[in-house]
Amino acid sequence: MATEIERKFLVNDKFSSALASDSERITQGYLSSAPERSVRIRIKGKNGFLTVKGPVNETGTSRFEWEKVIPVPEALELLDLCEPGAIDKTRFLVPAGPHTYEVDVFHGDNDGLIVAEVELRREDEDFEKPDWLAEEVTGDKRYYNSQLARKPFKDWD
Amino acid sequence: MATEIERKFLVNDKFSSALASDSERITQGYLSSAPERSVRIRIKGKNGFLTVKGPVNETGTSRFEWEKVIPVPEALELLDLCEPGAIDKTRFLVPAGPHTYEVDVFHGDNDGLIVAEVELRREDEDFEKPDWLAEEVTGDKRYYNSQLARKPFKDWD
Repeated sequence: MATEIERKFLVNDKFSSALASDSERITQGYLSSAPERSVRIRIKGKNGFLTVKGPVNETGTSRFEWEKVIPVPEALELLDLCEPGAIDKTRFLVPAGPHTYEVDVFHGDNDGLIVAEVELRREDEDFEKPDWLAEEVTGDKRYYNSQLARKPFKDWD
Repeated sequence: MATEIERKFLVNDKFSSALASDSERITQGYLSSAPERSVRIRIKGKNGFLTVKGPVNETGTSRFEWEKVIPVPEALELLDLCEPGAIDKTRFLVPAGPHTYEVDVFHGDNDGLIVAEVELRREDEDFEKPDWLAEEVTGDKRYYNSQLARKPFKDWD
């Protein structure tokens, strides 16, 4: 089990998918969306993944993560078992200095939401903030994908 | 994902661990105890397991099951993340004709509970019923291990 350290931002209208070096479609669902022990089934490209995430730390930045690659046919069967509310998004990879932002453009019930994440090796690691970054939302549970599955962006006030 | 078909019984005082051909200690917990999509972490002997089970069918006998062997150190870390209420039991394997009963003698908060399960290939398959079998409890959710983790035998009325 590794520790995932990441910071999360909204983006402004300066963001364009033309900034991306690569993109991929992601479909995922949750066998359990409990934030303290979520169990995610994801299909990304030619691979399936089962991912367990633990509770976030007090800064909202770090989280235990355990992941296994699984065959896509098995991931599809497990997706059928998941809680209602699958997540469908396109992930754009946007280089910024030594880091790469993962910018998720959501579809379906979360259409209109775009979230950028940067993964760090240490909580206090410096990273470039491109001018298309807007408000930081690290640690805001509403933006957890597990919570977007339960309460999608279209139902927000 | 395979289908698990099994019938479950209580045992009477004719049961003895001396009937068993083999036994092993099992420790398990649940990342999610929801009966329609439970996610179990188990340590049995030298292996860890992550097992997803789907909802039971209308007879309470069949259930989708998906399982991956995982290293014990990873299973231990995942057990730490599980919902409160780990299950600790000794499983005795008791041959009966062409089948083998798995008889689980529970410890800790489920001390006093003994449950025998036989796995079948078809719902209508015949199987021997030894004289140490008592009431059938197939499909009774109280006896699901996921529910025994939430509401252990010591707290039953």
